[in-house]
Amino acid sequence: MPIRHYNQIAGQQTGRVEALSDGVFAIALTLLVLEIKVPEMHVHSERELWNALLALSPKFLSYFLSFMTMGIFWTGQSLQLSYMEHYDRNLNWNTLFFLLLVSLLPFTTAFLGQFTTFKLALVLYWLNILALGVLLYIHWRYAMKNNFVRKDEGIAAVDKAIRKRIVIAQLLYFCGALLCFIHPYVSICFIIAVQLNYAFAIFSPQLKKT
Amino acid sequence: MPIRHYNQIAGQQTGRVEALSDGVFAIALTLLVLEIKVPEMHVHSERELWNALLALSPKFLSYFLSFMTMGIFWTGQSLQLSYMEHYDRNLNWNTLFFLLLVSLLPFTTAFLGQFTTFKLALVLYWLNILALGVLLYIHWRYAMKNNFVRKDEGIAAVDKAIRKRIVIAQLLYFCGALLCFIHPYVSICFIIAVQLNYAFAIFSPQLKKT
Amino acid sequence: MPIRHYNQIAGQQTGRVEALSDGVFAIALTLLVLEIKVPEMHVHSERELWNALLALSPKFLSYFLSFMTMGIFWTGQSLQLSYMEHYDRNLNWNTLFFLLLVSLLPFTTAFLGQFTTFKLALVLYWLNILALGVLLYIHWRYAMKNNFVRKDEGIAAVDKAIRKRIVIAQLLYFCGALLCFIHPYVSICFIIAVQLNYAFAIFSPQLKKT
Amino acid sequence: MPIRHYNQIAGQQTGRVEALSDGVFAIALTLLVLEIKVPEMHVHSERELWNALLALSPKFLSYFLSFMTMGIFWTGQSLQLSYMEHYDRNLNWNTLFFLLLVSLLPFTTAFLGQFTTFKLALVLYWLNILALGVLLYIHWRYAMKNNFVRKDEGIAAVDKAIRKRIVIAQLLYFCGALLCFIHPYVSICFIIAVQLNYAFAIFSPQLKKT
Repeated sequence: MPIRHYNQIAGQQTGRVEALSDGVFAIALTLLVLEIKVPEMHVHSERELWNALLALSPKFLSYFLSFMTMGIFWTGQSLQLSYMEHYDRNLNWNTLFFLLLVSLLPFTTAFLGQFTTFKLALVLYWLNILALGVLLYIHWRYAMKNNFVRKDEGIAAVDKAIRKRIVIAQLLYFCGALLCFIHPYVSICFIIAVQLNYAFAIFSPQLKKT
Repeated sequence: MPIRHYNQIAGQQTGRVEALSDGVFAIALTLLVLEIKVPEMHVHSERELWNALLALSPKFLSYFLSFMTMGIFWTGQSLQLSYMEHYDRNLNWNTLFFLLLVSLLPFTTAFLGQFTTFKLALVLYWLNILALGVLLYIHWRYAMKNNFVRKDEGIAAVDKAIRKRIVIAQLLYFCGALLCFIHPYVSICFIIAVQLNYAFAIFSPQLKKT
Repeated sequence: MPIRHYNQIAGQQTGRVEALSDGVFAIALTLLVLEIKVPEMHVHSERELWNALLALSPKFLSYFLSFMTMGIFWTGQSLQLSYMEHYDRNLNWNTLFFLLLVSLLPFTTAFLGQFTTFKLALVLYWLNILALGVLLYIHWRYAMKNNFVRKDEGIAAVDKAIRKRIVIAQLLYFCGALLCFIHPYVSICFIIAVQLNYAFAIFSPQLKKT
Repeated sequence: MPIRHYNQIAGQQTGRVEALSDGVFAIALTLLVLEIKVPEMHVHSERELWNALLALSPKFLSYFLSFMTMGIFWTGQSLQLSYMEHYDRNLNWNTLFFLLLVSLLPFTTAFLGQFTTFKLALVLYWLNILALGVLLYIHWRYAMKNNFVRKDEGIAAVDKAIRKRIVIAQLLYFCGALLCFIHPYVSICFIIAVQLNYAFAIFSPQLKKT
């Protein structure tokens, strides 16, 4: 088809999309570290210093949680992009909005860390994760539907595995969010447990290397 | 031609130019997130927390606007660079000054967000966008004129599409800027509408995948 | 083996892992620069300005120390990744937690710089370095055991050199940490000496280029 | 030669060195933008807002100066690395210390911007630029001497052009620094003129494209 419009040619550089993503993720991953400031105080004993360090523990926890969530989505996005043979402006903008949500995650995580007992903070955090999942799902479905994906042997199984992972993960996060009607703490613990499982693959079927 | 001068050999690494651009864009994209701070206050009800969140909405809006503008220019620059076969020190410095303007965009956006009713803030924001467009236009024209662009079939159509896009976009932004003589709010709404259109391709002719 | 699970396909993009690592390292490398602020004061003589500059010297020192440590681990991780032919989700998450610890290093370094006379600050700094070393060691051993490493001629010697380097370095850091029972300053000087040696290869056997 | 030591195999990944450099440069390039804060004040007229903007002009100038200097050194380092066929741990650490100095440049520039009338500020800025030049020069000479450089036709001319550029630039900066014995302002103007020339190639012999 002859080129008649800018939108037919724009946004096809997966190499650039990957590089920009890695840049935004690298910044988002380290954003909450900026919140962990060395206390500017005079301490007189090891115990006093220990207490000063302990006082920072909520910030360390937020950082750890945010890092883990980010790692899960970065791994998922890397995987999808590694299968893409073509790309277009719609996927390009899908990724840009995905990155927008990635860079908001440190905020929603810190917001949850600050207001742990409020349903609003939990819902906001959940909405952020939900939106990330929805965009990733659309990203993959759109690419499959338009034949942008490498036609590897076993691509059907890859397709199923990727979609299943997103759907199950989001269902678990949704259950986690619902638990806030019992108590926000129950929600948070459940969500952290889900993420720890995804990061450490605790309940994953034994992986055999081929 | 024998090499007699540093300027004949410098600035020819498009790979490095792309990587540096992605780095600067990644930072500029996330710069306004740093402005969205979790409120450090004691709240006693969900409603109070909701109000605290609402109070941050101008910063969210600025962030969204800046992200969208950046996305538009990043996509445009990616496209141009993907066609370059050669590069020289003039293009190299063109890109460096382009990146300078990119990294100023979060400032001019936040400035507009803070002083929405002032013409000066609007003109500054518009000048930033204008300068970005001018540099991108020169970048492409210079490369075409010096045969630095891949001689793909249909490059003439690509050339036309790229130039047309920049000129039309800048005309629309210019109209937007002129509207501030009615009221700065009219200007801002018009410019946001233009950018939403470019990001979501609302009024774009139906794209057919080849 | 047919693909049945997401974890079988995720986390295999070493290119992305390298790019994300370079992003996180670049940020972590420059994080302590943000602490070095130009003094906002009125000075009336060159001597006064000199004193203002001198007052910043602990921050310069922290920055230098953090940069050197980071450089050592970045070089080590680069080397390992350059030998990897395959990668999996376990290595992927190993690297993500490695990057988490990398981004904490500016904090633990600044913490040590602020509370130089306290054992706790020293132990925290040492634990950070120890954890980095342990993750790097696991990273390599896992890759060797699972045949993810390029089968270059002389890979056995490479394997030995990499492991030996980590073990000896960590033993030296451990000795350094123990010295804090004499005085934290003795510890710090010893650790800095070790790192200077690794950066400048002072006591390295003469390198011959092949 | 059989591998017997870690230092024989470490630091040979130019791809990683380039990526890390681009990351650090991207951050350093945008660091002074963080200093340009939107004034948080109530303004009542366009004129008042204009004055508030004007008050930021020294920060804009520092940013521009820092960006230009950084661009000059980034272009120079890109050029050198594009010729490297091999790399070793010494060059690796040369680059790391080069990046350390790069990330200090925003500080020394801002320091000069704050204390323009003091010789110390000027000397510090000059020392930073001098050290960058010295490291770049060693980087190139070491690579030439050890045959790490691609044996392109005309490499002798490239070698001469690269060395000549560094030496002449540093001589000019040195003259600039000496001028502070007349007045620091004379120094600053001279140095800015030199950098503008290098960025815009005003006095460069006409470049002919081959």
